[in-house]
Parts: sequence; structure tokens; C-alpha cells
Amino acid sequence: MAKDNKKLVEAITSMKEDFAQWYTDIVKKAELIDYSSVKGCMIIKPAGYALWENIQKELDCRFKEAGVENVYLPMFIPESLLQKEKDHVEGFAPEVAWVTHGGMNPLQERLCVRPTSETLFCDFYKNVIQSYRDLPKVYNQWCSVVRWEKETRPFLRSREFLWQEGHTAHATAEEAQERTLKMLGVYADFCEEVLAVPVIRGQKTEKEKFAGAEATYTIEALMHDGKALQSGTSHNFGDGFAKAFGIQYTDRENKLQYAHQTSWGLSTRIIGAIIMVHGDDSGLVLPPRIAPIQAVVIPIRQDAEGVLDKAKELCEKLGSICRVRLDDSDKSPGWKFSEQEMRGIPVRIELGPKDMEAGKCVLVRRDTREKTEVSFAELSEALPKLLETIQNDMFERAKLHRDAHIYDAHNYEELKDIALNKPGFIRGMWCENMECENQIKEELAVTSRCMPFHDQEQISDVCVCCGRPAKKLVYWGKAY
Amino acid sequence: MAKDNKKLVEAITSMKEDFAQWYTDIVKKAELIDYSSVKGCMIIKPAGYALWENIQKELDCRFKEAGVENVYLPMFIPESLLQKEKDHVEGFAPEVAWVTHGGMNPLQERLCVRPTSETLFCDFYKNVIQSYRDLPKVYNQWCSVVRWEKETRPFLRSREFLWQEGHTAHATAEEAQERTLKMLGVYADFCEEVLAVPVIRGQKTEKEKFAGAEATYTIEALMHDGKALQSGTSHNFGDGFAKAFGIQYTDRENKLQYAHQTSWGLSTRIIGAIIMVHGDDSGLVLPPRIAPIQAVVIPIRQDAEGVLDKAKELCEKLGSICRVRLDDSDKSPGWKFSEQEMRGIPVRIELGPKDMEAGKCVLVRRDTREKTEVSFAELSEALPKLLETIQNDMFERAKLHRDAHIYDAHNYEELKDIALNKPGFIRGMWCENMECENQIKEELAVTSRCMPFHDQEQISDVCVCCGRPAKKLVYWGKAY
Repeated sequence: MAKDNKKLVEAITSMKEDFAQWYTDIVKKAELIDYSSVKGCMIIKPAGYALWENIQKELDCRFKEAGVENVYLPMFIPESLLQKEKDHVEGFAPEVAWVTHGGMNPLQERLCVRPTSETLFCDFYKNVIQSYRDLPKVYNQWCSVVRWEKETRPFLRSREFLWQEGHTAHATAEEAQERTLKMLGVYADFCEEVLAVPVIRGQKTEKEKFAGAEATYTIEALMHDGKALQSGTSHNFGDGFAKAFGIQYTDRENKLQYAHQTSWGLSTRIIGAIIMVHGDDSGLVLPPRIAPIQAVVIPIRQDAEGVLDKAKELCEKLGSICRVRLDDSDKSPGWKFSEQEMRGIPVRIELGPKDMEAGKCVLVRRDTREKTEVSFAELSEALPKLLETIQNDMFERAKLHRDAHIYDAHNYEELKDIALNKPGFIRGMWCENMECENQIKEELAVTSRCMPFHDQEQISDVCVCCGRPAKKLVYWGKAY
Repeated sequence: MAKDNKKLVEAITSMKEDFAQWYTDIVKKAELIDYSSVKGCMIIKPAGYALWENIQKELDCRFKEAGVENVYLPMFIPESLLQKEKDHVEGFAPEVAWVTHGGMNPLQERLCVRPTSETLFCDFYKNVIQSYRDLPKVYNQWCSVVRWEKETRPFLRSREFLWQEGHTAHATAEEAQERTLKMLGVYADFCEEVLAVPVIRGQKTEKEKFAGAEATYTIEALMHDGKALQSGTSHNFGDGFAKAFGIQYTDRENKLQYAHQTSWGLSTRIIGAIIMVHGDDSGLVLPPRIAPIQAVVIPIRQDAEGVLDKAKELCEKLGSICRVRLDDSDKSPGWKFSEQEMRGIPVRIELGPKDMEAGKCVLVRRDTREKTEVSFAELSEALPKLLETIQNDMFERAKLHRDAHIYDAHNYEELKDIALNKPGFIRGMWCENMECENQIKEELAVTSRCMPFHDQEQISDVCVCCGRPAKKLVYWGKAY
């Protein structure tokens, strides 16, 4: 069968041979993305977009529970508005797309297509925030943004991508900090509980923080090849933007105060993480909670009497419990198996004439390929239970893999050896000097991923780079 | 109380006095939209966006039942791609925004921000459609589009707006025509069943059809001021685009054939229809099925013992049945009533100490202001029933109003008299000559809205303009 499938479904490059090609093959052959005639922009196909829809649904639900309201702001930013906050414009101006003509006429002021919307939200908040009664504002928008990247890769980096961006305004610095961490927590829980992707929560260094932020927090995931993927960020702006834009309110004592702000975002990039954390040499492996189709019923010898009818009956019955699809196309069962594997559908339910006689069917897990025979009577109970088991196992497996690829470096020699030979996260102490960070990046091609929250073990008391006293633990790594 | 409310909530201009100003007041005071610093672009605020979210949810569900799959295509169109279909580029080129620079560099070819995505979908379909097995493709995307309008009005016309655009490809002309009409039916049912907005279904004349289409179908609604609003359109392209873009497939006989295509769209403009069909001089009136909040519980003397607790209890109990909110802010009940009316919340539930004693509360309908006393025990049953009644009554009322503003014109004198004096739809026969259509538009400022499907009564046998023989009935009217 395995050999047959190779012929039926075009082979994908093996991970070990060429991870980058393996990734591109999966994206293309699982029909997640297609390239477009617009350089650097991608087409998200139905199987890819269904993933994003489920991500939106789950995340938006968690946002609403956290008191977030959705809005929509224009996609254009006048040049003068983008320039109001110094650090921010320096960070983004080199990579924006500029609209210079509207209809037949040149514009008086050129507009950039939003690379992110801090400036627009500030301009909006400046008008709608007058009194402490108007605070907090906890708004979010689902939209696309544009950054004129030179090198692009499906989901990971493209000139246009889909995301959500939350922008909040608060009366106090404490409230802003609380919201910044709360939203990071929402992202982390979502990644771990829904996507089965374990993440390290921490703070970015000064060098790596967002343009215009006082502090940036991040969740970092480890891909199968040992490279890190920044999976969501949350920024505390303090009152920097409020001062640049004049966002002031009168407090309870009738005194004029500046608002404190945050922003936080998660994008279609996270689909890259799902692929690279869970996928294998046969294709995608989707965690059941995010999978658009959780189980596919595949009839064996569907021409045999009663098989197709029974398959339909099972499908209908299970349809009210999980997201189940019947594959009654005229392809061979072997082809259908390979397709199910390529598309990462968590469970396939095989049903043939012999199964019919025995009053049972066979459940096959996508992640482990383990087979279980289940009687028709027990199916409604067994399938959701199996999906739950797969979800948990996938998380545990990813966590084991991640934890097995975290290495400690106590000095530069060790750091260099690990950076060159052992893909993964490297834990190393840091003196908080940007020069060391720059040296490590230039010489070893690893960057500081974050200063972790939950893991402040002092593995040494000197900087892994310069040997001077150091108190901060940093996770270093190569990153997408 | 009424006088008091006037002071509490800023008065809105009355419909009769100035309908356009009434509309703007509602949009602003019900907090649906704010103007932005980007000329001609609007900010959709939480109350406005929540409406769009519900529209998306309802419509997307109906799309999926109709076999539609969601995708996402780039927001940019290279100039050469836009120019491939002659009629299409003529229709859209004069009103697009042009991106000429990416980052620091001028682009080799300028890109327009999509005004609609026929050309991108064609470019995509050209690559993914090879055989009859690849058909049909029934794709849709939710996104924003840009048209560089000179005059803008909230929801009705803005330089950027949100919409969905469906684009399909089929093996035969019959299938394409079937899909075109099926999607028009989805729109019509959605408007009538969910938004309580009655619509006339029909076909556009040659003059009014979409740039590049063989035939355009439309649903037309009548606003309270007697002007029409085109609320959704569905286009059959035949094989015109397929020929321009080279979308060909091999059929079952292994012969090369051109695909047949359709597109269909509905936008945030429909929110303008909700406002102008149902609103009154106290604000918005939302049909329950689309209302983000269906009922608000307002405690009277909420400081009195037990009132607030009981209000919370009711709110919790009703929360599993409908979308209910408690207003326990420190504003006066009168202010809260006015706010509920301004925001168009279908029902308010008043609860005071006397009601408590009597074991009941008072339900007040937003649409008729009718009050009903309901015992606590009956509330869970009474509220959903009342919401259903309101939904149906709102549709019937809108239909009565619409039907009372349809006039028949048998000759040019009658047409002129109605066009000048009686706001509404005018039914009149047409000779199918574009000159008559042009003359009517120039002299009387009314346009052909559609040639209706369900109403092909021959009210005369001569053209309402030129008096020559005529077989087509047309609905004429002033339009937004």
C-alpha cells in the first residue's frame, strides 16, 4: 500500500533531507496556499483559510470574554500621521507601500497602506477620549496589513498578511501593564490549548522590542527543525504615543492626564507554526480542536452492498458531535488514505464489508497511525474521546520535543558549539548590554528570543558573551 | 419624561425636517461610525461593527449551506492584470487608488488597491482549472475594497468599504446562470428573513449592469424617504472573462472548453438600509435577528433592596435564550430608556420595587413602544416570542410602506408627475432603448432600478418615455 500511495500522491520531500523544501511541499500539496501574480503576496486557498477561520473563531471568543470589542479602521495612513511618533516611523517607513494617486489625480499627501495601526488608533482615541469615564478602550480589528518584505515565504513572511491587532487605552500605567500581560496570556493559552503548540512566555530585549514600545512581550515556539517562531506579541507603550498624539483625559480630580496604551497582534504566521510543530513526512498533522475536518469516513469497497449507506449513516450520526466528512468520491481507498494524511485530518474511519458483518469500523489516528476497532454502538462515545486523546498527546509530544532541544550555555565556547551544532533554544545569561547581543547575532546568527517569565533560574552569574556579571537569563535561538 | 430625555440625550433631527441630517445624526449618535483623518474613509465603531459581525455570521452560514468555500486573495492588482478585460478596466480604472512605491523604491509596475477582484480570481482560476474535474469552483472572500469616490456618506458610499465577493467558475452556461440566481436568492432571503427588509428581485438593464458582465441581477430595497438602495448584486459573466484570461478546461470528451463565471457581492452599505428602513425619530430600530443586544434589563430605583439582584438573576436566566444585557450603570432610568431607543435595542425590560412585589416586570417594544406586563415565571417563554413578533411586524410594516410607495406611470406626463412629487418606486413600461433610459435619467433624475422577476404585469403596451411598443416592465426610482 505505502508504495502505491507514493505513486498516487506526489511525494513530498522528507524533513531530514531538506526542511525548507518539506515545508513548501506541504503548503502546496495540502492546498493551503498558492502563489499569485502579485510578487510576494499569497493566495490562501480553502484548506488554509478554513484554518484561519477556526483560529479567528476561537481567539475572538477568548477576546470577547476578556472584554475586547471589535472595530474597523481605514487601511490607509496619511504620511504626516505615520510620522508623529519618532521611533515608530523609523521602524516602519522603510517597508511600507505608498499610494500616490487616487483615480486620475495625484494625491496632495501620499498615504501608506497600514503596516500596523497604532497611529490610526491614536488619532481616533485623541477624539473619543475626554474623561476618565471614556476609559478603558479595549478595541481590536481583524484585517490585513502590508510590509514590503524582500524575502517572502508562505505564511511566515509575505508582503500582505492577515492578522488581528488590539489597541487599548487606559487611565493608569498599572492597568496598561495588566492588559499587556493579560493578552499575552490569552495568546499563550490559545496556542497551547487549541493549537497544541507549547510556548515560552517572556519579554523582548531593548534591541528586539517593537518600534515605539516601552516593553514588548512575546510567546516563542520551537519548530521541528529547532528554529524559533515568534508566535504573538503584546506591547506596553506607556504614555509615549499619548504624548506624541495628545491623548489626554480629565481624571476624577479634574486634572488632565495622558492615557496609557497597549497593542497586541497574532497573524496567519501561526499557521506556519502548526505545520512545522506537528507535520511529518506524509503531510500536515492538525490538532483536532483546530482541524476544519476532524474525521473522514472512508468506505472500503463502497460498491459492496450496504457499505455506502452505512458510511452515510455513521457520518450523519457523528456530524452532530464532531466535524465529520464522508469521502465517497470514485478514488481508490489507498488514494483517499494518502489524501487524509496529506491534509492532516486527525482521524480516518475505515468501513468495509467485513467490518459491516462484524458491526464495527476501524479508527486510524493521523498522528500515530494507531488503529482501533470500534463497534458501531460505541462510536459516538469513542470518537470524541479519541480526538481529545490526540489533542493532548500532540501537545505532550511537542513539549517533549521542545524541552529536549533546550541547551544551557555557560560561556562563549559552549554557546558557539551549541549554536553551530545543536538546533534548539539556548539558555544563557546576559549582562544586558546590547553590544553582546549584537556580537552573538553577527558571529553565531542567533538572536535573543526572550527573557522568560517562568524560568528565571540563574544558570551562571556571568554573561555568556563577555563574562561580566549578569543577572538576566535569555533564550537565544535562530528564528523564522 | 419625554422632555427630560430631550435634555439627556442630544436630540436628533427629525426625519421629516431633513432626512439626510437625520441619517447622519443616527449614525453618529448611535455610535455606529466616526469620521477619520483619512478623507472619505470611515471608522466603524463597536456598535456598527457588531452589526457587520452578525451580518457576516448569518450570511456566511447561508453561503456554506450553498456550497461556498472561503479564500483570501491579495489586495493589490498589477495594472496589466486589471487591463485584461476591456469593459472591466473602463469601468474601474478611473476610480482606483494606485500604489507606486514599495519601501524606498518605485515599483516597476504600479499596483491598484482592489476595487473588486474579478481579475485576480481569473488569474488564479487560469492556473488551478485544467479539467472538468476541477469544476465548479465556488469561492468567496470577506475583505475591504477601495473606490476613489468624490462624494462620501457613512455606510452608503466611502472610499474603503467592507464586503464579501463571491467568484465562481463552471463548466456550462446553464450552471453559471443557476449559480447567479441562487446567490441572488440567498441575498434576498437574508435581507427579508434576517434584516426584515423587503426587496424587489430583478435584472439590471444593459446601461446599469456591471462592467464586464453579460447580465447583472439585483435586489432593490425602498428606504423611508422613498429612495431606492441597491442592496446586493449577482453577475453572470458568461465566458467573457474566461476568454480574456484564458481559463480553459478539458471536458469529458477531452475537448478544450472555456469556463463560465459569476460574481456576487454584498457590502456594509446594507447597514444603511437597516437604518433607513426601520429607524425613527428616536434613533435606530434593529430587527431582533440582527441586533447585537436583543433586550436590555433596566432596573428602576436600583438602590432599593433586592432590585439589582433580581435584575441580575433575570439577565442570567435569559442569557442562555437571547442576547441580553443588564444596564446597571449609575445613569438615571430615563437616560437609559433614551439610550436603549437611540441604539435600537428591540426590547427593554423594566424592573422596579413595585414590580418585584407583584412578581413581574414590564417589557417595552422599541418598534411600537407597546408595554406588556409579564410575570417572572413566564418571562423565558414570553421574551423570545415577543422578539419573534417584533421581527415579523417590522417586516410587514416595511413591506406595507414599500408597497404603498409603488406607483404606476402609463405615459411621460404621469412619470414626470410621480418622479417630481411622489417618492417611491415607479412602475413603467420600457421599449428597451437606452436613449429613453438616458432621457428619463437626465430630465427626471430617476434611474432604472430593475426589470422585476415576480411582477411582469403588462401595465401598458407602450414605452413610458417614447410611446413606442414596449414589453418590459421596469422599476424606476431615485437611488442612493
